[in-house]
Amino acid sequence: MERAPVASINLAIVGVGKIVRDQHLPAVAADGDFRLVAAASRNGRVEGIDNFDSIGTMLAAVPSIDAVSLCMPPQYRYAAAVQAIDAGKHVFLEKPPGATLSEVEDLAARAAAQGVSLFASWHSRYAPAVEAARAFLAGTRIQRMRVTWKEDVRQWHPNQDWIWQPGGLGVFDPGINALSIVTRILPRPVFATAATLEFPANRQAPIAASIRFSDAGGLDLAAEFDWRQTGRQSWDIEASTDAGTMLLAEGGATLSVDGRVVHSEPEQEYPMLYRRFAGLVRSGASDVDLAPLRHVADAFMLGQRQVVDPFDD
Amino acid sequence: MERAPVASINLAIVGVGKIVRDQHLPAVAADGDFRLVAAASRNGRVEGIDNFDSIGTMLAAVPSIDAVSLCMPPQYRYAAAVQAIDAGKHVFLEKPPGATLSEVEDLAARAAAQGVSLFASWHSRYAPAVEAARAFLAGTRIQRMRVTWKEDVRQWHPNQDWIWQPGGLGVFDPGINALSIVTRILPRPVFATAATLEFPANRQAPIAASIRFSDAGGLDLAAEFDWRQTGRQSWDIEASTDAGTMLLAEGGATLSVDGRVVHSEPEQEYPMLYRRFAGLVRSGASDVDLAPLRHVADAFMLGQRQVVDPFDD
Repeated sequence: MERAPVASINLAIVGVGKIVRDQHLPAVAADGDFRLVAAASRNGRVEGIDNFDSIGTMLAAVPSIDAVSLCMPPQYRYAAAVQAIDAGKHVFLEKPPGATLSEVEDLAARAAAQGVSLFASWHSRYAPAVEAARAFLAGTRIQRMRVTWKEDVRQWHPNQDWIWQPGGLGVFDPGINALSIVTRILPRPVFATAATLEFPANRQAPIAASIRFSDAGGLDLAAEFDWRQTGRQSWDIEASTDAGTMLLAEGGATLSVDGRVVHSEPEQEYPMLYRRFAGLVRSGASDVDLAPLRHVADAFMLGQRQVVDPFDD
Repeated sequence: MERAPVASINLAIVGVGKIVRDQHLPAVAADGDFRLVAAASRNGRVEGIDNFDSIGTMLAAVPSIDAVSLCMPPQYRYAAAVQAIDAGKHVFLEKPPGATLSEVEDLAARAAAQGVSLFASWHSRYAPAVEAARAFLAGTRIQRMRVTWKEDVRQWHPNQDWIWQPGGLGVFDPGINALSIVTRILPRPVFATAATLEFPANRQAPIAASIRFSDAGGLDLAAEFDWRQTGRQSWDIEASTDAGTMLLAEGGATLSVDGRVVHSEPEQEYPMLYRRFAGLVRSGASDVDLAPLRHVADAFMLGQRQVVDPFDD
C-alpha cells in the first residue's frame, strides 16, 4: 500500500545573501517537503525561479506561496514578517529573530491570531552533538562552565556593514549561537549577573564581550566572545561536572568527556532547521524561544562599556 | 449581619531607604489588609518593629511573615526574592523588578511553582489619570505621541550611587515610569525602532535617552528622557488624535483634552499598589508585566551610544 502523497510547502526566500546561498538553498533543495517558488531581494537573485524587488510585490504576484524564510538583516525583519503573517503565510525567521524583543513578542501574538506557524530559528541548536550534551548534563551536578566563542570577523563577516550598526549586535551575532546552545543544554534557566562590552572607538556594536551568568543554585558560568581571533578559531563549551569534564567543541559538532570523543557526526544544521519548520507547518504549531536574544539584551542593559581600538575591515 | 473579619497579611519590608520611608511605610500603615511585622536592611531601620541585618535572618526569626516587599536596589533583588519564594512568602517587587529580564522570568516561574503571589509593581500606572487616558485613547486614532520625562537627578536621586552603576539604569530609572504608563494607555503593543543613549564620560549609565517607537500600524511615538533638567520638571505624555490633543501631565496626575482638564485628583499611587498586592494575595494570582523593562533592554541593545560631559553629584 502506498502512502498518499503529501503536498509540498511552497516556499519563498526573502533577503538573498551569503547565508541563503551557503545554507538555505542547498537545504531547501534537498528537502522533499519544500518547493522553492520565488525569491525577493534588493540585491541578490536565485536562478531558475521568479525574483522580485520586495516581499510585498512577491506576495501579490505569487498567491501560491505557503511560507516565507526571512533572511535579511534583523533590523528589517519585522515589517516583512507582518506582511507575510497578515497574508496568511507561515514564517521562518533567520537568527536573531529581530532587532528588539518587543517586536518578536508582537510577531508571536500576530502569528497566533492568524493561525500561521512562526519559527524563530537557532541553527546552532541543531549542531550534531547538542542533544548529546544536553542528555549528559541532565544527569550531573555542574561545578563550572566556560563558553569560548572567538573568531575572526574579517574571515566570517567580510564587509557586512549592517552587523556593526545599532541592532546588528556585533560580536553577539556569533555569540548568540553559543547562547542558543547553552540555553538548550543547561537543565535550569540562567541569567546574566555582570558583563563587559568592548566597543571599537569607530563602531556602534561590540567587538568583544565577557559575560558572567548564574542560576538560583549559584552556577559559575562565564562566556567570552571575541571577534579579533586570528589563527585557531574557538567555538567551545566546557563544563566541569561530577561525572567528568565535558567539552562541546567546534560549535556543537563534537562532544568529549574527559578527553574521549563520545559523539561526532557531520553537520546538518540547516537541513534539520527546515525539517523542524516543515513539522511546525504540518502540525499548526509555532516555536519562538526568545531566551538567547533576551540574554543579549540583558547583557547590553547590565554591561560595563569599554572603548577599544578602532576596527576597520 | 457582620462580615467575618479577614486576617491581616503579615508584611515585612526589605531594603529600608528613601522610597520606603516616603511611600511604603505610610501606604502600609493606612491599609487595613497589612500588618507590618518586621524589616531587614543593611543600613536603615523601621521604628516600632523588629529589625534584621538580612532577609535570611529575618525569615528564620519571624515565621509569621506572609509577604515581603523588596525595596533594595534592583541588582540585589533576585537573590532576596528566591529566598522569600522558597520560604513560601508572597513577594512585592519595587520597580524595576530586577537587573535583567531573565532573572524576573525565573522568579515568575518559581512563584508559580511555589503557589505564591509575585507582584512586579509599576507605581506610575496607578497615577490618578492613567485609566482615564487609556479610556480616551481606546476610542481614537492616534497620529503622533510624544513622551517628555525631564527632571533634575540632583534633586530626585541625590548621592544614589547605585543608580549610576551597571544595572542601575540611569535615566531609565524615571524613564521606565513613563514606559509603564505608555504601555498601559496604548491600545496596541509598540517596539523601539531607534534610540540614542548619552553616557557621561565618567559614568556607566545614561544621563539622557531619546527613543523612537512604532507599532504595526506605523505609530509615530518618540520619548525624550533627560536627567539634566533644572527649573521646571516635565513628566508629560502628549498625543495628537482625531478626537483632539490629549495631555497626560505631571506624571499621570492630570489629563487634559484640547487644553481643558478632564481628570485631576490627588495622587494615591502606593496606597493603590498595596491594595492591588492584597488583591493578588487574596486571590492567589500574580502580576508580572515585563513590557516596561523589556523596552529598556531593547533600547540598550538597539541604541547608539554617545559620550557626553562628565557628571558629578
